[in-house]
Amino acid sequence: MELQRDKWEQLLTHDVGEEIFAFAARIFPICRSITGNGVRRTLREIGSHLALQVHEVPTGTDVFDWTIPREWNIRDAYIKNAAGEKMIDFAQSNLHVMSYSIPVRKRVSLAELKEHVHTLPQQPDLIPYRTSYYADDWAFCMAHRQLEGLREESYEVVIDSSLESGSLTYGEYLHKGETEEEFLLSAHVCHPSLANDNCSGIALLTHLARRMAELRTHYSYRFLFAPGTIGAIAWLAGNEDNSWRIKHGLVVSMVGDGGGPTYKKTRRGDAAIDHAMAHVLRHSGLTPTIEDFSPYGYDERQYCSPGFNLPVGLFQRSKYGTIPQYHTSADDLAFIKREHLLESYDVIVKTIGVIENNAVYRNINPKCEPQLGKRGLYRRVGGKEVAAENMAMLWVLNLSDGARSLLDIAERSKLPFEIVLSAARKLHAHGLLSAGPSAPGG
Amino acid sequence: MELQRDKWEQLLTHDVGEEIFAFAARIFPICRSITGNGVRRTLREIGSHLALQVHEVPTGTDVFDWTIPREWNIRDAYIKNAAGEKMIDFAQSNLHVMSYSIPVRKRVSLAELKEHVHTLPQQPDLIPYRTSYYADDWAFCMAHRQLEGLREESYEVVIDSSLESGSLTYGEYLHKGETEEEFLLSAHVCHPSLANDNCSGIALLTHLARRMAELRTHYSYRFLFAPGTIGAIAWLAGNEDNSWRIKHGLVVSMVGDGGGPTYKKTRRGDAAIDHAMAHVLRHSGLTPTIEDFSPYGYDERQYCSPGFNLPVGLFQRSKYGTIPQYHTSADDLAFIKREHLLESYDVIVKTIGVIENNAVYRNINPKCEPQLGKRGLYRRVGGKEVAAENMAMLWVLNLSDGARSLLDIAERSKLPFEIVLSAARKLHAHGLLSAGPSAPGG
Amino acid sequence: MELQRDKWEQLLTHDVGEEIFAFAARIFPICRSITGNGVRRTLREIGSHLALQVHEVPTGTDVFDWTIPREWNIRDAYIKNAAGEKMIDFAQSNLHVMSYSIPVRKRVSLAELKEHVHTLPQQPDLIPYRTSYYADDWAFCMAHRQLEGLREESYEVVIDSSLESGSLTYGEYLHKGETEEEFLLSAHVCHPSLANDNCSGIALLTHLARRMAELRTHYSYRFLFAPGTIGAIAWLAGNEDNSWRIKHGLVVSMVGDGGGPTYKKTRRGDAAIDHAMAHVLRHSGLTPTIEDFSPYGYDERQYCSPGFNLPVGLFQRSKYGTIPQYHTSADDLAFIKREHLLESYDVIVKTIGVIENNAVYRNINPKCEPQLGKRGLYRRVGGKEVAAENMAMLWVLNLSDGARSLLDIAERSKLPFEIVLSAARKLHAHGLLSAGPSAPGG
Repeated sequence: MELQRDKWEQLLTHDVGEEIFAFAARIFPICRSITGNGVRRTLREIGSHLALQVHEVPTGTDVFDWTIPREWNIRDAYIKNAAGEKMIDFAQSNLHVMSYSIPVRKRVSLAELKEHVHTLPQQPDLIPYRTSYYADDWAFCMAHRQLEGLREESYEVVIDSSLESGSLTYGEYLHKGETEEEFLLSAHVCHPSLANDNCSGIALLTHLARRMAELRTHYSYRFLFAPGTIGAIAWLAGNEDNSWRIKHGLVVSMVGDGGGPTYKKTRRGDAAIDHAMAHVLRHSGLTPTIEDFSPYGYDERQYCSPGFNLPVGLFQRSKYGTIPQYHTSADDLAFIKREHLLESYDVIVKTIGVIENNAVYRNINPKCEPQLGKRGLYRRVGGKEVAAENMAMLWVLNLSDGARSLLDIAERSKLPFEIVLSAARKLHAHGLLSAGPSAPGG
Repeated sequence: MELQRDKWEQLLTHDVGEEIFAFAARIFPICRSITGNGVRRTLREIGSHLALQVHEVPTGTDVFDWTIPREWNIRDAYIKNAAGEKMIDFAQSNLHVMSYSIPVRKRVSLAELKEHVHTLPQQPDLIPYRTSYYADDWAFCMAHRQLEGLREESYEVVIDSSLESGSLTYGEYLHKGETEEEFLLSAHVCHPSLANDNCSGIALLTHLARRMAELRTHYSYRFLFAPGTIGAIAWLAGNEDNSWRIKHGLVVSMVGDGGGPTYKKTRRGDAAIDHAMAHVLRHSGLTPTIEDFSPYGYDERQYCSPGFNLPVGLFQRSKYGTIPQYHTSADDLAFIKREHLLESYDVIVKTIGVIENNAVYRNINPKCEPQLGKRGLYRRVGGKEVAAENMAMLWVLNLSDGARSLLDIAERSKLPFEIVLSAARKLHAHGLLSAGPSAPGG
Repeated sequence: MELQRDKWEQLLTHDVGEEIFAFAARIFPICRSITGNGVRRTLREIGSHLALQVHEVPTGTDVFDWTIPREWNIRDAYIKNAAGEKMIDFAQSNLHVMSYSIPVRKRVSLAELKEHVHTLPQQPDLIPYRTSYYADDWAFCMAHRQLEGLREESYEVVIDSSLESGSLTYGEYLHKGETEEEFLLSAHVCHPSLANDNCSGIALLTHLARRMAELRTHYSYRFLFAPGTIGAIAWLAGNEDNSWRIKHGLVVSMVGDGGGPTYKKTRRGDAAIDHAMAHVLRHSGLTPTIEDFSPYGYDERQYCSPGFNLPVGLFQRSKYGTIPQYHTSADDLAFIKREHLLESYDVIVKTIGVIENNAVYRNINPKCEPQLGKRGLYRRVGGKEVAAENMAMLWVLNLSDGARSLLDIAERSKLPFEIVLSAARKLHAHGLLSAGPSAPGG
């Protein structure tokens, strides 16, 4: 196993918070859904940074238990009152129309209109985000306060949408590493103007991929930008034979708010990504929560379905559904912050760094400690950092048995992985360690 | 495996608290001991509800390391003062005579009397419950305050008891299920007028057996009403070759007070009954305590002796020995309550329901989630219950691998067993699950 | 397995705190280092109590990755000011000279002197303890307040030491038991006048060995008095082929202060010594801390190096490095107390008692409980102790399966080992138990 990979640290040297935020802001206005031109426009924006491969899966294609639905597109939508004033205008917020609303153009009474309006009575100033992918229906979403202000009169409702045979679109980008074994990074691209969920994730992965381009890696890195659920299912259906390649994976969503971070483990519960992410989070200085797998959430539901059982976890800041902004118009660009995007990026980069650099060594002199002092390896003067380095060397020597990995040793010793890695490299350079077999999961 | 067993829910539809209490009150006055007519009268009362099989094991019979003792019967007992007034009268409380007291009829001084009196100085108004099964002795039990009031005079003490060759009596009732495998439910019948310990347990099991009579079950249910220790040992000695049939079991005692509930695990510690009872208790809304096995307590001591090691736990409300009423005259009918008897009954019925209905399935579409929506299985609107049902379906699909049982899934998901069971049945009905092998312990 | 070993209790009957303290005080003034006459004098003192075998390992001998260094001896050292007054005098405290200082005799300016002075600015009244075993250097150690009082003038510095070819010295004493299997008790002898670290440990082991002399034991007990690190490495290098004999072991240091106790587990983490020590400490009435192994500390570092991985733990009161007196002149005879030395001695003796007397039995009547009452084994009257004895008998009967040891049973039942042992011996004497195979680690 080759250890001196290109420096991961260089990925951390720049402030990428600004560029992630800028990209999230750029794709925020696009009206995405699980199919249609909104997804295509989003992928085109990603494609301006990456050699993105775009796939179209035709309507009607069977993907496991599901079928690719008709393609949905929308041009305009509004509600006008009797005086002809626009009360609701799709052009102001694409959340105003329930995703996959069938076309409608008619006059309705207030009572009939109300049957087709979603609001949040508990959050009366916010517009909810709603979908109806698999039932033919139409609806508007609006602030509850606005609904309460509507008078008893006749309204003109127009949704200029189409539901037609077309295709589902997703994009993927492969960073080739030394092996065909892959690290999957997956973001859903089906939500309209919700900044955190998931312009943030799309933007983070786009810029991570861009910055990794020059990096020599052990694993190949597959970046997948696909509509939630049906997109992931379509990808798995099309890549079933190659799914064995995925040795590690993360679903990335809602990475711009200041909560969490939250990591939900893979269904396996003890995959390398679970240990690596937990380790990085524990040493992050943030206040992480690590949760066991559950079958509700994002596309880890599909990757971790029992027939695949891939080692894919979910990384978020606040956990979905736990914050008032979730799936509302309050999930806007003001809700995501450059510093939180940067923190999330750092956690992911460091986790990848652990996975890339994890290794197994064998102590060549296992009987008693070797004399580190005569090799200049044991520093007697220095602060906390030197003490940690010395301890890391003793731990690596004590536990490197050809079975325990550096990550195992970092976990056991409660020392940061990078210090353990650095100690191991020094000991290896001085001939005190031999390289062992590959690390688990590697 | 047949899942649509007769509905367990019907056992829960009636308020059985009243009938359990009434039966406990009916048998409360009887003077029971480990042998004798008190036990026979009690079994006759049980037999008025069940086709009880009554066994007599002759005095002198060897049962493992023990020997069936002489039969003890008592007709009358009293202490009269010099003026001939009855100071203590067995007719008022059968606790006044130490169980297995040898016959006595003589005049004694106060000093000599005191050598044969048990009181509770810390609880001066209560009569203690005492026994001397295996040492020839006699004694009265009384309130400490009463003892202190006795004057220095001569007393006539009479215990009109007999200790003669006879037999030990126990009763059993078998509810036949589809298999010969058994669920043992055992209550001790050797205590005299102690309402909670164990008129409550005898009454609960009697009425549970009566109500189960019409129910079609997988397991056969053996209800054992036997004197503590020696009775259980006699039963085990007589049924050694069939003890393999006992796949689950509960000792039931002190189920009428408002404490606990307390469940003491089987010696195995991970038997199906342990998981089922723990699960039901966690979802009971009560404040349960679950304890590891220890070799002191009730007849689980014998069932869980290492040569048998049967999967039999102990269910109680307050743990024995932890409440001031324990083994005193304060354990009377006012101490047990209909609502607590009902709660105890419900816990036991639900636990049996889990054991009966536990099953293992196999997800037929393990690759990605099946589309529940198109089958009408996924409800989008509804409160907490609907959310739990949806989650239960996702969990069952995700974990039904032909190895994990529904109880395992309920434990993992922290959802109540009945919701998981209901979800599994719906998924099975829609062809999304196939029945797997039998559940563990079944 | 022979259980009725000579009574361990007799080791606990005397107040040995006084004699341990007296011996610690006797060896306190000696200037020890990793080699030289200080170690020899210390071993001679030990040898006045034990038939100590003293070994000399010549300078230049290779011991694994290390080489025995030159022998260091010192006769005198001082700093005189311009007026010829002694500012620092080795005769007052051997901590004043950095251990292994090369000889020096010259006049220096204050500035130059300061380059060769160690102080503790945060503890300005204390002299630090410093060494420079493997780098040719010289230095004085003094109170920071004294350094601050030195004027700008010329100083005469004299260290009358020698570094010459010689040998490293260590001593060992073997108490022969029934088997060749050994219990290693190891104390470092390389520190100069530090009372707790480790005159206390040397004195405790010396007097433990002396008192054990008459005792018949199962294991052989090896008492090793060697310089830290290089001494333990030299011993391991010379005894590699016999290291398999060490079935249990303790490094003993800093046992005279009132902190802890602290037990650091062996690298194995579940060795018999780990369980025995944890058990004794939990029942000690003290406030113990039990830590997992880490590769920093005392000579357990060498014994637990992966090529040996011996079951050797570390017993201390306060953990090294956690108290302000550590490695300073405040670690003097006033810092160690007779009562703490006695407590430490008791813990070690009781731990040895557990290891010696641990046994595995088999319940001969595993079906139901045997009738203890008819054998007079079950006492009905008595306080907490009798209750514990009764419980111990039930536990021993219930768990003695030929695999679980008495220590396992003590741990499971939370009863003290001695009560479980006593119960087992009674049950064995009454023919209710047969002796099983040897205990684990025995």
